[in-house]
Amino acid sequence: MATVVQKFGGTSVGDTDKIKRVAERIRARMEEGDQVVTVVSAMGKSTDKLVDLANDITDSPDPREMDMLLTTGEQVTISLVVMALKELGVEAVSLTGWQAGIRTEPVHQDARITDIDPSFVQDYLNEGKAVLVAGFQGVSDDGDITTLGRGGSDTTAVALAAALQADSCSIFTDVTGVYTADPRYVDGARQLDSVSYDEMLELANLGAGVLHPRAVEFAKNYSVPLIVRSSLEDVPGTLVEEEVSMEENLIVRGLAFEKDITKISIERLPNQYETMSEVFAILAAEGINVDLIIQQTTSDHALNVSFSVDTDKLDRALELLEENKVHLCYSIVRHESLLAKVSIVGSGMISNPGVAADMFRVLSEEEVEIKMVSTSEIGVSAIVPEEAMIRAANALHTQFELGQKDKEKVEALQA
Amino acid sequence: MATVVQKFGGTSVGDTDKIKRVAERIRARMEEGDQVVTVVSAMGKSTDKLVDLANDITDSPDPREMDMLLTTGEQVTISLVVMALKELGVEAVSLTGWQAGIRTEPVHQDARITDIDPSFVQDYLNEGKAVLVAGFQGVSDDGDITTLGRGGSDTTAVALAAALQADSCSIFTDVTGVYTADPRYVDGARQLDSVSYDEMLELANLGAGVLHPRAVEFAKNYSVPLIVRSSLEDVPGTLVEEEVSMEENLIVRGLAFEKDITKISIERLPNQYETMSEVFAILAAEGINVDLIIQQTTSDHALNVSFSVDTDKLDRALELLEENKVHLCYSIVRHESLLAKVSIVGSGMISNPGVAADMFRVLSEEEVEIKMVSTSEIGVSAIVPEEAMIRAANALHTQFELGQKDKEKVEALQA
Repeated sequence: MATVVQKFGGTSVGDTDKIKRVAERIRARMEEGDQVVTVVSAMGKSTDKLVDLANDITDSPDPREMDMLLTTGEQVTISLVVMALKELGVEAVSLTGWQAGIRTEPVHQDARITDIDPSFVQDYLNEGKAVLVAGFQGVSDDGDITTLGRGGSDTTAVALAAALQADSCSIFTDVTGVYTADPRYVDGARQLDSVSYDEMLELANLGAGVLHPRAVEFAKNYSVPLIVRSSLEDVPGTLVEEEVSMEENLIVRGLAFEKDITKISIERLPNQYETMSEVFAILAAEGINVDLIIQQTTSDHALNVSFSVDTDKLDRALELLEENKVHLCYSIVRHESLLAKVSIVGSGMISNPGVAADMFRVLSEEEVEIKMVSTSEIGVSAIVPEEAMIRAANALHTQFELGQKDKEKVEALQA
Repeated sequence: MATVVQKFGGTSVGDTDKIKRVAERIRARMEEGDQVVTVVSAMGKSTDKLVDLANDITDSPDPREMDMLLTTGEQVTISLVVMALKELGVEAVSLTGWQAGIRTEPVHQDARITDIDPSFVQDYLNEGKAVLVAGFQGVSDDGDITTLGRGGSDTTAVALAAALQADSCSIFTDVTGVYTADPRYVDGARQLDSVSYDEMLELANLGAGVLHPRAVEFAKNYSVPLIVRSSLEDVPGTLVEEEVSMEENLIVRGLAFEKDITKISIERLPNQYETMSEVFAILAAEGINVDLIIQQTTSDHALNVSFSVDTDKLDRALELLEENKVHLCYSIVRHESLLAKVSIVGSGMISNPGVAADMFRVLSEEEVEIKMVSTSEIGVSAIVPEEAMIRAANALHTQFELGQKDKEKVEALQA
């Protein structure tokens, strides 16, 4: 008998008919003899409706009260799924975050899970019941209701799977799995059978959007086998796990891209040890996430620093730099918007130093201007003009043969 | 500095504009220097919408899951009221039932409060915060979310007032107070300045509908001064308290009436000690509430029993009697629908035995047929034809001079 955790997102429980289908899926899994814990999100647009109510009242809703408000969404879903299960003759019980023993930091809207006491869930499983847990929510030590921020229900599912030492955690979503690239934009993009935690983490952080990075991190830390699969079709998904077998350990496994990026350049900063930390501390204090960073020294020993931010953070970043102009003692700030980021990801890059060069060659052949570059152990990212993003992604997808089955590629490598 | 508890029902928090007005009322009360706890219901029709969702899924929703579902309604309201208060610059905090320490029996949909730990609420009051508590809900000792049944938010407010030893508990509603009779139907019906717990209890049980009987009972048991007042206009309400001063201790204080009543008669039951208990145990086991009961012995020592029920319980009652015909050993069952109950209430009746006679005289003068009668220490009820209900109520209201101010009546008595 296996213990499995499954998670269904807002689209999968968007109306009462879809909720009935989720109940049928749970029943099917129960009939295989497994212990089943299911985490659900709020129904479709219900969170938006709650946010609208709050916005009717105030422009700056209190974070504690937003958590109080929004957590009702998942509470509605769990009760309805249990009703649907009972209608099918399946014994089931719903639990809110605090009832499921999910404890978090005393932080609102973006709390991290600190601890899970799975005994309540386990007791119900031992009674043979399907357990429904409200995603996205927990309780702090001082008894406040908290939420886990974006992708929170994924994190709830993975954390519960870790606490219950479950055999797997399935994330049901509106795609059939993890793709080599977004198939809406890249010809020949193909679903992967498996991907490593690190690759998934890199893809998730690069905006591939299927799984929340925090959930992947949690899965990696606790070695929870994750399965990304479709809530609409009964087809195999993508397995995210630690060990991807050697032959599948290909150089490039997938690519990601996102637009609405702006490059900001600060010219002629004093060339001192503390300069870099001062610049980025000012931005971090206001929650402005900086992605790629380039530092150059001019011929007369001044410092030029460039970095990329999401374009919607541009105005605030410029304001902050202007406010701190005297303190930072720079000469001028420039910025360039309408940029995009294209990235390739693959564990095999560690031992294949030529991959970045291959990427730059492809981009140059496509006459795509490279504005900035960054590399990690398992990825290379390039900032390019937004208009060239899709063209670059398609060219890279072809160059690295991502459209071919892993097996074919391995055979080709071995031939 | 006084501690006050206030309760606003679903109509008073029906939309975000109304929620802002409730917040302004709370602020005004805070500015008087009082500690203010406010209990709110779910917004207007939101409970109906949740019930519709459940009905989409099943005809017989699980009671535990209905509690899980419906309690989200009050949770939404408390968070929105706190947001509105913060927008007005008032420090405030919201608490669900379990956070406010409201513990109940392990029963769903109609649990009784067993205990309140007010320390959490008190701590926030001591910090100078307005405290918003979700009405209608609590938590059982095994950690399940429970609800208090109809009128549950009134009960939450009164119970919190008792636990906090509050100076008063105001129930804000869509009428300005307790009336001598329903002013929509009775000419000259007048708002009462005060009424005793027992009178209010009798009126509430007789369907006057302003306050839930359980809340009044709670207020009486813990001597919580209750004020029924308007959430729309800033006018004095009606005070419900133990000691109504002697001069106000009038014979008849108010009257109530309700329709959709059916009289059921069982003829020729065996005249044995256990007969009555057997008949009513069968009905009680199925939750059929019996109101008035008449028992007569026929000339040949058989037993005839008549009782009144709500008409919507008629079919089930007849079924049960038919099923038990052999066991109960009666001859025939008859029933008469389209009846109504008219009742007069007043603490002074105890020492005024002529009141019932006066009532019957008035009804006879109005040619209203009396089908059944029952009396309590402070009330007399008569079952009459439905078509005569309003006529009877108006005649009784006039006869007992309920339209006159208490003071005038006392002066007239003393003259």
